[in-house]
Amino acid sequence: MSDYCIQLINPNTCQAMTEKMARAARQAAPADTRILAVNPQEGVPSIEGHFDEAVAVTGVLQQIAAGRQQGVDGHIIACFGDPGLRAARELATAPVVGIAEAAMHMATLVATKFSIVTTLPRTVIIARHLLQQYGFSDHCASVRTIELPVLALEEQEAVAREETRRQCLEAIKYDHCGAIVLGCGGMAGIARELTRETGVPVIDGVSAAVRLVGALAALGLTTSKHGDLAYPLKKPLTGMFAGLNPF
Amino acid sequence: MSDYCIQLINPNTCQAMTEKMARAARQAAPADTRILAVNPQEGVPSIEGHFDEAVAVTGVLQQIAAGRQQGVDGHIIACFGDPGLRAARELATAPVVGIAEAAMHMATLVATKFSIVTTLPRTVIIARHLLQQYGFSDHCASVRTIELPVLALEEQEAVAREETRRQCLEAIKYDHCGAIVLGCGGMAGIARELTRETGVPVIDGVSAAVRLVGALAALGLTTSKHGDLAYPLKKPLTGMFAGLNPF
Amino acid sequence: MSDYCIQLINPNTCQAMTEKMARAARQAAPADTRILAVNPQEGVPSIEGHFDEAVAVTGVLQQIAAGRQQGVDGHIIACFGDPGLRAARELATAPVVGIAEAAMHMATLVATKFSIVTTLPRTVIIARHLLQQYGFSDHCASVRTIELPVLALEEQEAVAREETRRQCLEAIKYDHCGAIVLGCGGMAGIARELTRETGVPVIDGVSAAVRLVGALAALGLTTSKHGDLAYPLKKPLTGMFAGLNPF
Amino acid sequence: MSDYCIQLINPNTCQAMTEKMARAARQAAPADTRILAVNPQEGVPSIEGHFDEAVAVTGVLQQIAAGRQQGVDGHIIACFGDPGLRAARELATAPVVGIAEAAMHMATLVATKFSIVTTLPRTVIIARHLLQQYGFSDHCASVRTIELPVLALEEQEAVAREETRRQCLEAIKYDHCGAIVLGCGGMAGIARELTRETGVPVIDGVSAAVRLVGALAALGLTTSKHGDLAYPLKKPLTGMFAGLNPF
Amino acid sequence: MSDYCIQLINPNTCQAMTEKMARAARQAAPADTRILAVNPQEGVPSIEGHFDEAVAVTGVLQQIAAGRQQGVDGHIIACFGDPGLRAARELATAPVVGIAEAAMHMATLVATKFSIVTTLPRTVIIARHLLQQYGFSDHCASVRTIELPVLALEEQEAVAREETRRQCLEAIKYDHCGAIVLGCGGMAGIARELTRETGVPVIDGVSAAVRLVGALAALGLTTSKHGDLAYPLKKPLTGMFAGLNPF
Amino acid sequence: MSDYCIQLINPNTCQAMTEKMARAARQAAPADTRILAVNPQEGVPSIEGHFDEAVAVTGVLQQIAAGRQQGVDGHIIACFGDPGLRAARELATAPVVGIAEAAMHMATLVATKFSIVTTLPRTVIIARHLLQQYGFSDHCASVRTIELPVLALEEQEAVAREETRRQCLEAIKYDHCGAIVLGCGGMAGIARELTRETGVPVIDGVSAAVRLVGALAALGLTTSKHGDLAYPLKKPLTGMFAGLNPF
Repeated sequence: MSDYCIQLINPNTCQAMTEKMARAARQAAPADTRILAVNPQEGVPSIEGHFDEAVAVTGVLQQIAAGRQQGVDGHIIACFGDPGLRAARELATAPVVGIAEAAMHMATLVATKFSIVTTLPRTVIIARHLLQQYGFSDHCASVRTIELPVLALEEQEAVAREETRRQCLEAIKYDHCGAIVLGCGGMAGIARELTRETGVPVIDGVSAAVRLVGALAALGLTTSKHGDLAYPLKKPLTGMFAGLNPF
Repeated sequence: MSDYCIQLINPNTCQAMTEKMARAARQAAPADTRILAVNPQEGVPSIEGHFDEAVAVTGVLQQIAAGRQQGVDGHIIACFGDPGLRAARELATAPVVGIAEAAMHMATLVATKFSIVTTLPRTVIIARHLLQQYGFSDHCASVRTIELPVLALEEQEAVAREETRRQCLEAIKYDHCGAIVLGCGGMAGIARELTRETGVPVIDGVSAAVRLVGALAALGLTTSKHGDLAYPLKKPLTGMFAGLNPF
Repeated sequence: MSDYCIQLINPNTCQAMTEKMARAARQAAPADTRILAVNPQEGVPSIEGHFDEAVAVTGVLQQIAAGRQQGVDGHIIACFGDPGLRAARELATAPVVGIAEAAMHMATLVATKFSIVTTLPRTVIIARHLLQQYGFSDHCASVRTIELPVLALEEQEAVAREETRRQCLEAIKYDHCGAIVLGCGGMAGIARELTRETGVPVIDGVSAAVRLVGALAALGLTTSKHGDLAYPLKKPLTGMFAGLNPF
Repeated sequence: MSDYCIQLINPNTCQAMTEKMARAARQAAPADTRILAVNPQEGVPSIEGHFDEAVAVTGVLQQIAAGRQQGVDGHIIACFGDPGLRAARELATAPVVGIAEAAMHMATLVATKFSIVTTLPRTVIIARHLLQQYGFSDHCASVRTIELPVLALEEQEAVAREETRRQCLEAIKYDHCGAIVLGCGGMAGIARELTRETGVPVIDGVSAAVRLVGALAALGLTTSKHGDLAYPLKKPLTGMFAGLNPF
Repeated sequence: MSDYCIQLINPNTCQAMTEKMARAARQAAPADTRILAVNPQEGVPSIEGHFDEAVAVTGVLQQIAAGRQQGVDGHIIACFGDPGLRAARELATAPVVGIAEAAMHMATLVATKFSIVTTLPRTVIIARHLLQQYGFSDHCASVRTIELPVLALEEQEAVAREETRRQCLEAIKYDHCGAIVLGCGGMAGIARELTRETGVPVIDGVSAAVRLVGALAALGLTTSKHGDLAYPLKKPLTGMFAGLNPF
Repeated sequence: MSDYCIQLINPNTCQAMTEKMARAARQAAPADTRILAVNPQEGVPSIEGHFDEAVAVTGVLQQIAAGRQQGVDGHIIACFGDPGLRAARELATAPVVGIAEAAMHMATLVATKFSIVTTLPRTVIIARHLLQQYGFSDHCASVRTIELPVLALEEQEAVAREETRRQCLEAIKYDHCGAIVLGCGGMAGIARELTRETGVPVIDGVSAAVRLVGALAALGLTTSKHGDLAYPLKKPLTGMFAGLNPF
């Protein structure tokens, strides 16, 4: 029997990616921790821009609400843009961690500068905005892209993996980084291998988030309900959002 | 007959607020410009936190998509958190302006420092994040609150107005600001009066946005479709999001 | 008869540039707005550095004082360094907008990052300082130069135009910008064409300023007279500056 | 038998504080993790300034070298100034985490702003410098002090505890923070109680570091040896430093 | 006979202030250094805002040009706003130092935070902008004002001196600064006394600049003529500016 | 007989480097100033990383304590990382200046941007952190390396000098800097020659620090003893640190 249950939310509707991330999460989790992997039924099959993120947020919040009812000990938002993170924190009692922030925090603990290797060029701005929000702009040596869409990580796995490895090596060689952050949930599962192959710490946000949210839970730290992360004010949500109503 | 049509999107479902903002927008618009004021049918009746914003975003995007089909010349997101602004810009061809950014930009043109007077304390963090994103943190002297919810601006209009005036005067007296930004769409319509009463420029984002988006339209400037604001990648959106599919 | 009169101040003494900018301004202005284009009789024929700016400032202030006496509804400082902007705001009652800030503000509304294409390399530092002052350093992808002096825009128009176009295209290709800001008043008049040719919004500060200052005027927003932009303290200005005395 | 061994280094020579922190660390550690608590034999009995930190660093490095020889899985520098952190990372193979950074990282995951409650006013500047280095200046609402020296936490425990509680409550009330970071290793052991008493997450860096360094170890992430954290260059260290020679 | 000649430029036309600053400068100068104190014949009698600064710049540049012809070894711009500093550097060969930057640089060498005590509230924004330009925003604990105009330092010397002392003491007590920067050239001559009376380093920019510009001269460091500080481009300056033409 | 005595502390144990820096210091010093050049007996022979710096700090503090007893008028920490600077300031009464800060301050007075030319790539991060701490990140155009260890400056002097010159020239050509800061104490003595050869101000921190600390001493400015630079609290330092005890 597990002591802790962590909800892993894939914000997109791609079941294969949910399963891949669940495998990585389970590999990263301690023995006493169960991973509950979910994804919305409705939404967008992959997230590669501001619009995709916006569409995904409702599903994330529905899952947070569901996880909260199930009494999970922590939630992970498993998309590198951390979509809906602050809104999720308002809704949740347990800690909520995004995989981008998880990987970035970890990277700053093992290197003075890290590089991010992500998917399409249009997502670079999202990573840059997160770096600024989290305070890590000065800790980031570069953001590189494999110039392949998210789903290529499922459908052309070998090609995508090879290009990821190549960008990691170039970042190490040219950008003066000491660690690599993998910039997509779909890259979960290859971090340990890439760490071996590249000689620097390569960090997958899914694994990092499992351990971080587990750490918060074990320390008895839950999301602050004082101030701007207090539960949402009670209001009559209507239509397709009625289900989100937390009361 | 109007030359320009600007879509004013109230992201919440409060019809009274839509109408009030429409009046302010029409008063601010030039003679050749028509205001098309809309709000989502489903969503949240007022926006006072990250969660409320997240819920509102779907409605904003639906309206953007509708406005685009109607061929409007510009879109305004009329909630002080500018919810969904970047996603809306991906979806839109015409320019999209949020009322928070509109008011802040204008304020920096008439004063070296401005203060924001907004509604509830929990929304202050949203204003602070916007200031950082837009580059205006150093131009903001203070963010003050009237400690009343958004709908008080409809339901206790006199009280809310008086408290708004009081906070403006205190900001001028104690915070060394030269102008005031009204931090809620529901405060539209009182800016000119407050300008007279306080002796400093008081800026309402709805009016400011009408003129800004009109300026962009008149200059032939539309949202960049090069890079991260390019149209969303074509994907099979499902369920309640299918309607958002822009193709 | 016009409702609004906007004073367009070319800070240098080059009459041809004043006329070119006046044409661009009139094209950008709404029907109800008259453009009053002026330049100092004495000063410097083009502005390409800190010294040139400093020399130009007295002329700018003389024109602001004159415009104020004529009761204009707004002033534009039409040189990309926005020379004397804050001093002008102290002296003026009506709103004052610089063409650099005007173009930069507009650019942030249609793209997440913009590039600047300006004249000589020695002016780059001026653009960088303005970006920092206005809060837009993080919104600027690059500052590029055509490596031609300002007056080449008058005397070798075709060459300068072609090189401007080339730098715009390179910025789009290599610097990940979504929009271009033209970094010299002498580039007024080619923005719409360049927008068509490059496929991204290309923004000319003169046109942008006409619409921005017009927006402020229409909204009843004038320069704050509270605090550091209050009218200059009454003092006996002497010698060639006596004419500047605003009392 | 433990799977992991984490070395907890108290940089000062106060044995009582080492023991108190060891107790907090053991309480925070998972069952499979052993805490090896050490402190230098020579140095300074408490750390309350730049000079004290500088004196403490040699001891920290000696302990890191010793821990490395013993094959520990991670090192914790258990003083809120994180003295010698970067130097320790050069010397170590395993991950090294300071208690200040640990607490700050955790705080940003459960609140949008945190306050720090530390000991003497002269240490505030140290906290401020760390906030800047780690990127968290904008996430910090305030740094407050109990105006008692570090050793008061041992010798006047009840008084110090009460004053700590009082400062936490004032920070929550006046500074708009959502979480509290305890700014001294000597405050270890009271975080859970203060969390209950104050209603917001109160974070002790020792516990946080135990879980963070454990997370890194479990994920197979060790300190980057590429670039500026590579092992120190081989040099003939002399005199009292000969013992530090890692070769 | 002196080895070095330093030109002290008072940018305003107040002869009494020029003389007071010259006395302070001579007291601060080494034996081998002669102070050549000048002020423009025409301009503004005191500088308390952006407009006053703008008016003063022409006179500063005329004096720089004159000093250059006389072969001085360095120039000081002796007004706390450092008006025309960059333009002066273009025009000069010898080093040019402003008294605000001089005092700020020195302050950061003897304290981790300094406060500024200046004259009128409307000049605070000028100090803030300089702090940002020079990189010292984070080193400044506060900017305080004596709420007296510049000329009060001449005409009500005792009152102004007492109020300056009072603000220094309050800054020390409440703002956590370790040093004070006197924010007006007219405060020259009282720094040593205030240092004694307050117990912290109180820095007068005139004295600081004399030693800094002397240091540069002695080290053979002159203003860079590579890049944006190269001599102004040769142009036909006209009218009252013809005299500024450096060729 | 000298009026002033400045203690030049080489933080490493390389006697040859101490002597070279002493020669540069004496050349830079005014006639009334004596240079007391020292280095620790024990420590590290050259400083090329965080660990080396940490090892060197104890020696720096011992020398500061010794210098203080001898009544020197100022201390210089003559290693480009400014190791132990803040701790030294706590311990000292006289002013303390690091050679990195000295060179950077001077560079900002003669150019709008400077480049740093230093030794090994692993020291770049140290320079970057100092730039951030001192507020000069935006004033630095680039940090370049000669890719030679510190001691090569002694043992392969001609090669190292030539490579230094080459990097200076490349920085001037490609990085848009107006001045060069030499990023190692071992480069003392070649700044004047390089200034001649490159045509831009090349600044050696040792010379710069001699003049800066001399300026502070002459102005009667000593290290603030108010706040965080107050003397270290009285504590029983033990073991090899007992000698550091300042009481």
